[in-house]
Amino acid sequence: MIADPEGFGLDNLPYGVYSVGSAAPRVGVRLGDAVVDVAAVLDDDVFAAPSLNPFLAQGPARWAEVRARLTDLLAGHVPASARHPVGSVALHLPFEVADYVDFYASEHHATNLGRLFRPDSEPLMPNWKHLPVGYHGRAGTVVVSGTEIVRPCGQRRAPADDAPTYGPSARLDIEAEFGFVVGAGSRLGERIGVDAFADHVFGAVLVNDWSARDLQAWEYVPLGPHLGKSFATSVSPWVVPLAALHDARVPLPAQDPEPLPYLRGREPWGLDVEMVVEWNGEEVSRPPYREMYWSPAQMLAHLTVNGASARTGDLFASGTVSGPQRHQRGAFIELTWGGREPVTVAGEERTFLLDGDEVTISATAPGAGGGRISFGAVTGTVRPAR
Amino acid sequence: MIADPEGFGLDNLPYGVYSVGSAAPRVGVRLGDAVVDVAAVLDDDVFAAPSLNPFLAQGPARWAEVRARLTDLLAGHVPASARHPVGSVALHLPFEVADYVDFYASEHHATNLGRLFRPDSEPLMPNWKHLPVGYHGRAGTVVVSGTEIVRPCGQRRAPADDAPTYGPSARLDIEAEFGFVVGAGSRLGERIGVDAFADHVFGAVLVNDWSARDLQAWEYVPLGPHLGKSFATSVSPWVVPLAALHDARVPLPAQDPEPLPYLRGREPWGLDVEMVVEWNGEEVSRPPYREMYWSPAQMLAHLTVNGASARTGDLFASGTVSGPQRHQRGAFIELTWGGREPVTVAGEERTFLLDGDEVTISATAPGAGGGRISFGAVTGTVRPAR
Repeated sequence: MIADPEGFGLDNLPYGVYSVGSAAPRVGVRLGDAVVDVAAVLDDDVFAAPSLNPFLAQGPARWAEVRARLTDLLAGHVPASARHPVGSVALHLPFEVADYVDFYASEHHATNLGRLFRPDSEPLMPNWKHLPVGYHGRAGTVVVSGTEIVRPCGQRRAPADDAPTYGPSARLDIEAEFGFVVGAGSRLGERIGVDAFADHVFGAVLVNDWSARDLQAWEYVPLGPHLGKSFATSVSPWVVPLAALHDARVPLPAQDPEPLPYLRGREPWGLDVEMVVEWNGEEVSRPPYREMYWSPAQMLAHLTVNGASARTGDLFASGTVSGPQRHQRGAFIELTWGGREPVTVAGEERTFLLDGDEVTISATAPGAGGGRISFGAVTGTVRPAR
Repeated sequence: MIADPEGFGLDNLPYGVYSVGSAAPRVGVRLGDAVVDVAAVLDDDVFAAPSLNPFLAQGPARWAEVRARLTDLLAGHVPASARHPVGSVALHLPFEVADYVDFYASEHHATNLGRLFRPDSEPLMPNWKHLPVGYHGRAGTVVVSGTEIVRPCGQRRAPADDAPTYGPSARLDIEAEFGFVVGAGSRLGERIGVDAFADHVFGAVLVNDWSARDLQAWEYVPLGPHLGKSFATSVSPWVVPLAALHDARVPLPAQDPEPLPYLRGREPWGLDVEMVVEWNGEEVSRPPYREMYWSPAQMLAHLTVNGASARTGDLFASGTVSGPQRHQRGAFIELTWGGREPVTVAGEERTFLLDGDEVTISATAPGAGGGRISFGAVTGTVRPAR
């Protein structure tokens, strides 16, 4: 088979779940513009499942073995019966989400949001540079790319009003994030050290953490975001294995103050992933993941330092990826500074999302051999409130 | 069979998951001091599962039918092969937890915590009387009663210090809560109205939301509690069906201001459940659930008003149940006023939990025919940090 040049070569080989017609969903691996049926080429029923979870639970030695075998097999001839043009299949949520945690790991994003939500205080809270701040989101509303996003309703209170009103969100936003999928879990009471990251995390996806800013601003004190986020979180259909990210690894930006020992690791887990946000087909932002303050290995170490177990299918996301420049901001509330500085999309001044808008987040990273690998894209279209 | 007088008569019939020896876990129903195997007496394999979820997913008409059949059958002779003394079986987590949401629905608790965590501000946030404030917790660390609780480690910062330190929590606490188990879910984009509560919620359990107050106080701004809660949440092994709570239903305390229309219902879903908290076997508190400001029907309506779907196995808890009196407070941070007003337990002055401490929360409610039904108990013993 020939790998096409769009970032889905043999150095990538991301996994997803696909179906053809009314057949049951199965695990596929992407090569070029084809989806290859993994159960067929490996003659292994663990890939005949409708989610990656059974394979993920087999652990890192098995992930490496399967990747080596696929790399070998796919360099040769793949029978036509085991491959499908990617445009001819339906792509499903690639894994069953166990718990979903969302972090807040970009200093630029946290500072911008602090200024916008709490203009009279220091933008960064005192804890921010000591621990990767995060919270649990709703696992049951994580959906695959392409799922339509119905504008959520809820309570919001205008600054001039005493009481809240009920209605559709008027400040619907995105958050361009990067997410990590736990394959091998841990037991209750066990910690996952920073340097054990790759023994537990299988791979990465793109995440759009859709956010209703008006609902969020009213509800979020003191227990954090809830309905402003829980209506939908979209993920890309292809899980890129950590093994494909070897050449994307870079040192983190400097951390000052030095983190506590349980957050210090020997291996660099910064990632040189370049994201692109398109609004109705027009590029509006290029968030640079390499600018993130906290690494995903630190996130997982923090998540489990209290003895919380991790499970196959746990998803943890970085929080909005924003760089220091305006065109590197990964949320529209930042990009348009709370709606006060519109951006131009197809000749129109725009702030928050309108019904019918489509947002697509894509990303690439350095692959083996000097090329780039693709994460594909996570896309969603806004539909009117019901 | 004879129902014993301890609240597990024919008017209760809670469901759990039990095993005998090394046999696979199965669904049982409790009657008196016996566990009756439901798959055996009903000749139905849906109850041969290791969780209640397959039965819960069958929906409210089926729940009613099974309850009616069990009520009928258990009034007569149950073969010895289908029943076991409750002391001879192991009890397991009765359902697979999908998403876990924790509310904050006691005005007394929210006011007390506001005073303790934010002494310089109004204790209740402006949103509190307009919506049931809540947040997502960690579903993967919900454990069954009896599971040992390892003291969590993490970051905490003493008020006089600039920087946090790492170590075992020194302010380990409980929260006595009541939890609701979703049986029949809803689709993405669909709302569950206040009066559709009983079409979706199957039953109730007792919850102990173990809380590390020092970790929580340092981490919780601005995204809410995370590691201070995520290490363990214990639930009672018996799920009491809503059908058994008919005579426990009471009007809510007055809500002022009147909630928005989506939070108004025709049916009363206040519940006259009396909880008892024992610390090393000594009663220290009697939290009255009937004092709760927000009803569970309002919680579920709020949870889904933004279109978030609910799933079989979703658990949502009330938040700490506290009444207006000191001996009605359901968390030790309130009961001891931040550790400054110790309580006497077995002749010793106590504030937060010590290693070896055991906490048991039990509850009863009015049953049919003038007696009381029992929720059993949720218990846990604190083990030293690892």
